[in-house]
Amino acid sequence: MSSAVLLIAHGSRRPEANADLNIAAERLRKRLDGWIVETAYLELAEPTIPRGLERCGERGATRIHMLPYFLSAGSHVADDLRGFRDEFAQRRPELQVQLCPPIGLHPLMTEILLDRLPEAI
Amino acid sequence: MSSAVLLIAHGSRRPEANADLNIAAERLRKRLDGWIVETAYLELAEPTIPRGLERCGERGATRIHMLPYFLSAGSHVADDLRGFRDEFAQRRPELQVQLCPPIGLHPLMTEILLDRLPEAI
Repeated sequence: MSSAVLLIAHGSRRPEANADLNIAAERLRKRLDGWIVETAYLELAEPTIPRGLERCGERGATRIHMLPYFLSAGSHVADDLRGFRDEFAQRRPELQVQLCPPIGLHPLMTEILLDRLPEAI
Repeated sequence: MSSAVLLIAHGSRRPEANADLNIAAERLRKRLDGWIVETAYLELAEPTIPRGLERCGERGATRIHMLPYFLSAGSHVADDLRGFRDEFAQRRPELQVQLCPPIGLHPLMTEILLDRLPEAI
């Protein structure tokens, strides 16, 4: 069984915001030995989510974790992500695909904010 | 000298996304003993950034840190935030006001993503 992470951002018209997702994915690759790590964007950038899911399948993943790189995922985003998951699960029933929670109010977020506090830009 | 944090989110039409900022602020309050901690939204919710800055001043802050609760702050957001900072600095020259970096690619973000990975929703 081969596991994949599809790291999903909203997508932006600004290339530098989209590039952040690739850096985050690279950091995950270093920590997830033997995992497939792909990226996708909900809108405004490519690869799309269906394409990202397909790529995971093409690379041999049998279990795919859709991991939202979103501070929060309100009903709109959550519905969209669930829609992509369900559609893919129907099309590729031999693969397991699950949706993970967004970054949200993880306790480490407080540590990140405290770290940013003394750094004026 | 009294220090303040103005924690700033984008703002959403969804009350639950806006409520996250209050929870994040409450967590900062517990860690920043003696600091003033206020919240503000760039758009779609209140208090606005100018109002949040004023509140910090009214509560006796002499130094205000504008802390963006944004994954990234592209040129548009950064320009807006700098604009609010500069306008307030001109209006209240007796107060120090500075802008901190967004959450961005902080190393702890990888730990948060790895933590979210096994949690299907």
